[in-house]
Amino acid sequence: MLGLSERSVLAGNAIEQGDEIAERLVKSGKEVIRLNRGDPAAYFRTPRDIIRSSIRALREGKTGYSYPGGVLELREAISSRQKRLYGLDASPDQIVITQGVSEAIIFLNSMLINPRDRAVVLRPYYPLYVPALQMEGGVPVYADYEEGAEGRVDPDRLRKALSKARGRAKYMIFANPSNPLGTVMGRKEMSELAEVAKDNDLLIISDEIYDEIVYNGAKFTSMSEVSKGIPAVILGGASKSFDATGFRIGYAVIPDCGKYSVGLAAKLTDYAKMRLCSNTPAQYAFAEAVNDKAQHARDTARMVREIERRTNLATDLVNESEYMEAQRPSGAFYVFPRLDMDALRLSSDAELVMKLLEEEYVHVTGGSGFGSPGRIRIVSLAPEETIRRAVRKIDKFLARYSK
Amino acid sequence: MLGLSERSVLAGNAIEQGDEIAERLVKSGKEVIRLNRGDPAAYFRTPRDIIRSSIRALREGKTGYSYPGGVLELREAISSRQKRLYGLDASPDQIVITQGVSEAIIFLNSMLINPRDRAVVLRPYYPLYVPALQMEGGVPVYADYEEGAEGRVDPDRLRKALSKARGRAKYMIFANPSNPLGTVMGRKEMSELAEVAKDNDLLIISDEIYDEIVYNGAKFTSMSEVSKGIPAVILGGASKSFDATGFRIGYAVIPDCGKYSVGLAAKLTDYAKMRLCSNTPAQYAFAEAVNDKAQHARDTARMVREIERRTNLATDLVNESEYMEAQRPSGAFYVFPRLDMDALRLSSDAELVMKLLEEEYVHVTGGSGFGSPGRIRIVSLAPEETIRRAVRKIDKFLARYSK
Repeated sequence: MLGLSERSVLAGNAIEQGDEIAERLVKSGKEVIRLNRGDPAAYFRTPRDIIRSSIRALREGKTGYSYPGGVLELREAISSRQKRLYGLDASPDQIVITQGVSEAIIFLNSMLINPRDRAVVLRPYYPLYVPALQMEGGVPVYADYEEGAEGRVDPDRLRKALSKARGRAKYMIFANPSNPLGTVMGRKEMSELAEVAKDNDLLIISDEIYDEIVYNGAKFTSMSEVSKGIPAVILGGASKSFDATGFRIGYAVIPDCGKYSVGLAAKLTDYAKMRLCSNTPAQYAFAEAVNDKAQHARDTARMVREIERRTNLATDLVNESEYMEAQRPSGAFYVFPRLDMDALRLSSDAELVMKLLEEEYVHVTGGSGFGSPGRIRIVSLAPEETIRRAVRKIDKFLARYSK
Repeated sequence: MLGLSERSVLAGNAIEQGDEIAERLVKSGKEVIRLNRGDPAAYFRTPRDIIRSSIRALREGKTGYSYPGGVLELREAISSRQKRLYGLDASPDQIVITQGVSEAIIFLNSMLINPRDRAVVLRPYYPLYVPALQMEGGVPVYADYEEGAEGRVDPDRLRKALSKARGRAKYMIFANPSNPLGTVMGRKEMSELAEVAKDNDLLIISDEIYDEIVYNGAKFTSMSEVSKGIPAVILGGASKSFDATGFRIGYAVIPDCGKYSVGLAAKLTDYAKMRLCSNTPAQYAFAEAVNDKAQHARDTARMVREIERRTNLATDLVNESEYMEAQRPSGAFYVFPRLDMDALRLSSDAELVMKLLEEEYVHVTGGSGFGSPGRIRIVSLAPEETIRRAVRKIDKFLARYSK
């Protein structure tokens, strides 16, 4: 019996929508402005010390299988980092290295979700959160961020939504700083969320992959600082804060909350065993980079300053257009403007993305992929001139399609 | 509602059984002989040209995200390799790069299996095949290799087993050369399997990760050589034949069989998009290694010659013991002796593995993990002296536990 499974229709990634068309355009000689993938390494060279430590690991023959849950050196480095930055006491046994945060999310859903279980997904969300949940038969319960607020979700509305889930909700997931909103959650808002999680027996999954990419005066708080004693998993990795997206090294830190957290770490390691290990030299390289605090601080400060400038520029330019309106981000590197779809001769943001790509050679992502139709996500990592050109093209395109 | 999913009990890997104990022993200063992980890179340095091309990729800044299905250079290299070695015409579009063969197997099960679907698993099997299937609700239909034959499965018995599956069987999976048996399938046996697959509308999943590790006069045939027009997926990668286990680069090649194969490749790429990409520098490095045919031929010839010698030695020594009996392998690097469990004061091979580890500091894998109780799998990659010492210790241990 040939044919695909029912769940397989869920596979994919909104961020990659249009990738095949973009490839075709590039092949035919067109210059495509790609503002769909949040890849700092495409614009800022991966720091030299990470490259150097990668080379050292390769030369030293660290090329074989390593411990499935991650080499001890890296888990120790992450342990120290979380202590240093967030005051968290997590031993290497409470840390599991994954092939990017994506793999951690896929594993967590497989290990937590029975068919018809619920999970709270703060909306707009990172695209993977939803198919990873639905593939295991889970059902998302969406909780919308309040308009204009810094990552706030109304706790009363959230409690109401949860009461409908009748105790079937397993976890709550969100990215802070938010992808795609660029908001950074305040401490009070996080405490409110943690309270709701505690009262409803939810595991908190806090995706903190952008934890060091915070600017415009915002201050990042790790969920581990406010969730003491509440089951939580903190996700992070080499991709964004360390500008090494192509390394595919992520981590899950499981703060101590007794037996349940020990079981979570052990089970996550069992999943890791199924695929043997993460790239071994990259793990050693990332460990050195995490430990070289002074060098990392310099590298990150430079990159974040530039990201702040580019993101502010992109936001200003977007807001100069009469067809778009965007909130100013204070974390990550995305601008997520709202469009007046009623005023446009376009049926959806998906159609907009495809037409914009084919007609103006600008590649962005539609808001629908993030649970927020009528918006587009623009990656704000490109140099100033590219951002100017891209926003001008988007504006011209929207003018052409306005009613 | 805290707690884990039902499927999560399936997570793990028989090969890693006892890993925590081994780590503890090593920490306490014991010298553990680890013959449980099939890791050539632990004994044979990963070839210099792969290291060199990794370093080049890192220095050239190839550290960002890459195409989810794999960089074109690598897919082109694999395409040429399959053509050169097996006469297969597969374009880069028919090739998807995965994070090791393990990830390909996990993706394939998710994309193919609906709850209660069947899949034929040739037994003994590589451990991951079964939980990866069962996690999606699938049910294995086992087909045993004939005793003493080179990877032969009785096609009549297989057809009978399939008739009981009443058209619910989706695919047939096996490793050739076999892990753990070390057998290399003959062309005739493969044609018989392909016939059964064709008659029963089964996709063939042929795990050929050991395709170049063949010796003792055996000749390897790729399934793609005998399955023309029959839906198939050929799996391989950098780990074994290229001695780079820690790179985590695998590939799935989908030979053309019309619309179905095009759909398979597209869907597998959709899965790849969920986790963005495989390690980027490792992909470029592997591409260069595949293309450097002369260097690779020299590196492999040397390694395979040594593996042949060590595996033959291990087989001979095992057969000198009155408690074990093993067939001589002609592929991969495992010896898989049968034990007379009735003559031993040990309830299972699992108990044997744990006691052998704790008492003699020798780490092997129990046959139960491969669907073959009463056997153990010994990795035959270690130097001669280590193999001698390990087998002596195993023999002594079995003598102590004999009735």
